[in-house]
Amino acid sequence: MPSEGLDGPNRTRVKPANDTLLRALRREPTEYTPIWLMRQAGRYLQEYNETRRRAGDFLTLAKTPELATEVTLQPVERFALDAAILFSDILTIPDAMGLGLGFTDGEGPKFERPVRTESDVKALAAPDPELELGYVLDAVRSTRTALQGRVPLIGFSGSPWTLACYMVEGGGSEDFRTVKTMLYSRPDLMHRVLAVNARAVTDYLNAQIRAGAQAVMLFDTWGGVLTDCAFREFSLAYISQVVRHLDRENEGEPVPSIVFTKGGGAWLEAIADCGCDAVGLDWTQDIGRARARIGHRCALQGNLDPAVLLAPEPVIRSESRRVLQAFGPLRNGDGTCGGHVFNLGHGISRFTPVEAVDTLVQAVHEHSRSLRQ
Amino acid sequence: MPSEGLDGPNRTRVKPANDTLLRALRREPTEYTPIWLMRQAGRYLQEYNETRRRAGDFLTLAKTPELATEVTLQPVERFALDAAILFSDILTIPDAMGLGLGFTDGEGPKFERPVRTESDVKALAAPDPELELGYVLDAVRSTRTALQGRVPLIGFSGSPWTLACYMVEGGGSEDFRTVKTMLYSRPDLMHRVLAVNARAVTDYLNAQIRAGAQAVMLFDTWGGVLTDCAFREFSLAYISQVVRHLDRENEGEPVPSIVFTKGGGAWLEAIADCGCDAVGLDWTQDIGRARARIGHRCALQGNLDPAVLLAPEPVIRSESRRVLQAFGPLRNGDGTCGGHVFNLGHGISRFTPVEAVDTLVQAVHEHSRSLRQ
Repeated sequence: MPSEGLDGPNRTRVKPANDTLLRALRREPTEYTPIWLMRQAGRYLQEYNETRRRAGDFLTLAKTPELATEVTLQPVERFALDAAILFSDILTIPDAMGLGLGFTDGEGPKFERPVRTESDVKALAAPDPELELGYVLDAVRSTRTALQGRVPLIGFSGSPWTLACYMVEGGGSEDFRTVKTMLYSRPDLMHRVLAVNARAVTDYLNAQIRAGAQAVMLFDTWGGVLTDCAFREFSLAYISQVVRHLDRENEGEPVPSIVFTKGGGAWLEAIADCGCDAVGLDWTQDIGRARARIGHRCALQGNLDPAVLLAPEPVIRSESRRVLQAFGPLRNGDGTCGGHVFNLGHGISRFTPVEAVDTLVQAVHEHSRSLRQ
Repeated sequence: MPSEGLDGPNRTRVKPANDTLLRALRREPTEYTPIWLMRQAGRYLQEYNETRRRAGDFLTLAKTPELATEVTLQPVERFALDAAILFSDILTIPDAMGLGLGFTDGEGPKFERPVRTESDVKALAAPDPELELGYVLDAVRSTRTALQGRVPLIGFSGSPWTLACYMVEGGGSEDFRTVKTMLYSRPDLMHRVLAVNARAVTDYLNAQIRAGAQAVMLFDTWGGVLTDCAFREFSLAYISQVVRHLDRENEGEPVPSIVFTKGGGAWLEAIADCGCDAVGLDWTQDIGRARARIGHRCALQGNLDPAVLLAPEPVIRSESRRVLQAFGPLRNGDGTCGGHVFNLGHGISRFTPVEAVDTLVQAVHEHSRSLRQ
């Protein structure tokens, strides 16, 4: 147990030395705009690839708390990032449900036993995270220990709908026709899958919070493939259910939640109404207009185009300034405080040069500090 | 030349027996909501697959006017659709520019000579459609003849940005990192590619109009992968340039234009401002809210989720009614007329049963007639 020693009742009481992220998520004043990057522990980092090689395969990496802790720390050690995000796979829950997760090279995740029939659906049950996802909770605890309070640790889960996409399709999809056929033809079955998933995601995130996650994020990666009506009924309703049942604090500290629907620009108001503290924005939305729509209710996270990191340094600087300036001054018109967590609008590309990340983090910190003066 | 005989000065003067589509695009009263389907001549039709087999390969099918005419007519003969759309490939223009278009099985289009360097960009020139895309114009003429005025014929082109995506990437892409790297790193080169494309698309669509296309549509399939700023600068600016230079009428008849940006829900007002007659909607937008935003300026086309056609008949009926009801009554609040052309929010899936299309066309016609009474 790498988490022993610091792992005790006092561990999570240590406030992070750098709590800028948590204050921004709570819409409290910060000296600069905090930044972290979706998929920041990933293949663009040489040290990540080395650890992964050592692990042998992706699932072993995700399922071995020591290795997961190691890769979670790597980007935080290399860059001046304001948060760590738990390294894990988005499909740990359906894996724990017994669907048989595997990865094929270049093809992404595949389930041996996808959920297709009425009896498949009826057999589904929410796993007990303490019993069946203990390796994730161990990784949360050992990462908290290893971070030594430098920056906060974000836990995460896929949204009920996004998990259902993988569970029913059996893997990734271009047109989601299998899961959508269930949705349109057998909405009763679809709702049952989603109800189980919502329960599972709630239990999973609350277990991560108890293990020490200081903020949690729901990745609704595939909410944007739905119609307006179907998004509200089959994705957002279950996200709301999860958010309503999340532990709002742990050991006296508030635990903010972030909801990110990729391609969800049309539904920002509805997402902001689900009770989350922050809404993630992909790169297609103007963050200034998004703030005008929901900034009085939620903090915003995003929204640089990940492709900007493939461009030369001056472009990275000017494009990150553009996002900061579009967000605007920290104070709202009524004197209350807005909240912005800088991030990409999607996971970082494996083709990103590490120097680009350094440039970005520096540019965001420097420019946002100068805007605050 | 299958177009001889009727192909003369009098040919295009024949008004279509069914001009419901053209009236809806002009926001004039119609007895029912007209319907056609993106990719309606496609692999879900057995007769299409037979013609394609006869052609040998996709490019031969697209480049042989007799065969292109045959497949353009197939869905119109089978279903009570209110328009035919020219069967052609979206990449005819870059092919005519000499980039060497080919299709690999299951991998989609590939260019032998993608546009990557400064000298590649400088070598680009807009093709003369009469000389280099004559096979498309022949297909337009022979389709008009074969249609005998039953329904109007829609011509089309990819948007300048969408063509540029394929030209620079050399084919399809998941992350568009090559074209976005050019956009962010060398915007001067990107603008030059887009200027050539805008000229080429304008000439191409005007040639289709002169050959007999009675409406034209710009497919901005990849506009939605851009940031708010980049969409306006690199896609919409060039769409506007094309639309401003389109022939507004041919032989005394107005020729309406439709602009469809997939994933462009955030920019409906800006798209409606480009001067087009109708705006296409993917399935993620509520068509009622879209109408409230731009319905006083433009007709709307869309927006059923193509996956609905994989569901049973009652679901097809109820989901198509939902779109018609969300659009609302034909009259605007001020007594002027709105315009709705029913369509899918994306191309029809190859897995669609033909009976589903029959059900849909019937349901749209019947239900919209009953709503008009």
